[in-house]
Amino acid sequence: MMHSFIELAGIFETKFNIRHFPEHTPSLYDPAQYILQLGGKRVRPVSVLMGNELFDEINPDAYDVAAAIELFHNFTLIHDDIMDKAPVRRGLATVHTKFGDSTALLAGDVMLVKCYDYLNRIKSPSFHRIIQLFNTTAAQVCEGQQLDMDFEKRDSVSFDEYVNMITLKTSVLLAASLQLGAILSGTGEGNRQHLYEFGKHLGIAFQVQDDYLDAFGDPATFGKQVGGDILANKKTFLMIHALEVADSASRVKLQQLMTDNPADKVEQVLEIFKACKVDEWANELKEKYLQTALQHLEDIAVISKRKEPLKELALYLIQRNR
Amino acid sequence: MMHSFIELAGIFETKFNIRHFPEHTPSLYDPAQYILQLGGKRVRPVSVLMGNELFDEINPDAYDVAAAIELFHNFTLIHDDIMDKAPVRRGLATVHTKFGDSTALLAGDVMLVKCYDYLNRIKSPSFHRIIQLFNTTAAQVCEGQQLDMDFEKRDSVSFDEYVNMITLKTSVLLAASLQLGAILSGTGEGNRQHLYEFGKHLGIAFQVQDDYLDAFGDPATFGKQVGGDILANKKTFLMIHALEVADSASRVKLQQLMTDNPADKVEQVLEIFKACKVDEWANELKEKYLQTALQHLEDIAVISKRKEPLKELALYLIQRNR
Repeated sequence: MMHSFIELAGIFETKFNIRHFPEHTPSLYDPAQYILQLGGKRVRPVSVLMGNELFDEINPDAYDVAAAIELFHNFTLIHDDIMDKAPVRRGLATVHTKFGDSTALLAGDVMLVKCYDYLNRIKSPSFHRIIQLFNTTAAQVCEGQQLDMDFEKRDSVSFDEYVNMITLKTSVLLAASLQLGAILSGTGEGNRQHLYEFGKHLGIAFQVQDDYLDAFGDPATFGKQVGGDILANKKTFLMIHALEVADSASRVKLQQLMTDNPADKVEQVLEIFKACKVDEWANELKEKYLQTALQHLEDIAVISKRKEPLKELALYLIQRNR
Repeated sequence: MMHSFIELAGIFETKFNIRHFPEHTPSLYDPAQYILQLGGKRVRPVSVLMGNELFDEINPDAYDVAAAIELFHNFTLIHDDIMDKAPVRRGLATVHTKFGDSTALLAGDVMLVKCYDYLNRIKSPSFHRIIQLFNTTAAQVCEGQQLDMDFEKRDSVSFDEYVNMITLKTSVLLAASLQLGAILSGTGEGNRQHLYEFGKHLGIAFQVQDDYLDAFGDPATFGKQVGGDILANKKTFLMIHALEVADSASRVKLQQLMTDNPADKVEQVLEIFKACKVDEWANELKEKYLQTALQHLEDIAVISKRKEPLKELALYLIQRNR
């Protein structure tokens, strides 16, 4: 019997909601444990379980891989929050705000080591392949974060460069989570690859939506401050496209707004966005990535009934807050 | 045929002196590669080879484990230098000074991931045991660094607490390096354990010597600033012992010096150290740890001729700069 995302999230949470670290040296391990209790949708670890169950009953190894993935994701959050000097996450103080930068750095480090403790429990003969995919993905996430910082210092970023950066920074982890589950099922290379591409394109679609909602979202339901990316001069999908398609007067105006930071900057930028029809373009772009993702799901050689939970997940992720 | 430390260091260097990272994303990988080229004695990776050759011809896996250990060591240096705000290492700018804190943080992260790439190449049936020891040791090194930071904020630290901290922060990595080599040779649990204890005690002896040289070393041959620990109010073996054995007047004086930071602080502290015979005590303590280390080497069940290179390494490490 197959499970929905919500059911698997519940099963995962029951297993994951433990102390993952020793009781000793609480000055190191309490901060590491702290971020895990801030919650989150657990999309990535549940994707491991779903990628596994797409082909077969859940392999017990999948829970260890899922735990490793969720620990890895939280490790990146701790270190990213240090780099971004972010004070708050999910409504509570970030690790470095609560415990100091040095402890947050170390807590992240030890959490990354802990990932490999979980991976080392795997009994599957695909052990080496799993470690390899995990490592490749982990390095790509670091590359994506570095490129994101590099882009902040640059005047212009192309659409392709942004897609590449965002793919590395956020999409490959979702794609790899699904594929790790597939590897544990023993399914063939073709299926594994299609599932990876499903996750990758779904992740990009999700990012397009995130960028869209930052500009055009409903303040009542969008979790973050609407216009935050505009205030921070972030080169989002929307801004990159607007700079590409706007007439030269609007382009100059956009660049001026980013330099001058007037009080009504968000309103003025949004007006130009709308004049360039950036909102429509973003919705079409999201739809394009979503359709590509769904096509890859379609192309997986397994009866379509087994694909339902993943299809539901895709629609749930992409249509939230609309 | 067995090899000396110097010979094995040469063999290791030849294999290790490559670019370990992709050519793309140089803004992330050049900083990671940069620290590897600052050199160093490569004591830990060579210890993997020596721990392996103590029992048998060198297993090709040992070079991958050695590379992982050296990468791990350099990962800790990058992150420790961020935490300590250290401007210089081996006479050159530290990674965070040259490339910024955020890039240094990420370069360290990706270097830790790279360790597991090397470990994942191992063919040995002891694969899981090796990952487990590596992980345990990595976590201990993080714990040691955290305790070191905790101690800076405390008024007093006991001898036992300091030994525990320094064991975690520096000795276990040497001990584990040796034991990883032993595991690859397939030798039994008893031998592996004695080799670990040899490395652990040798590491502590080395730290006693390091603390001693900081206070009493020859400025001409000691690599760092003599008196640096005293200036920074570090709770070293010497300071902890002095505070324990000094009469109450001297103890008050020591604490006053640490608070007031007079211009002749180093001279005044050294005078109290000498009056308490801290120098003699430290030499005896170092000798005690060295002898315990050598006893464990003695207790390893292998013909004594094979132990010669490790014995030489111990004497070389402990008697340098004297």
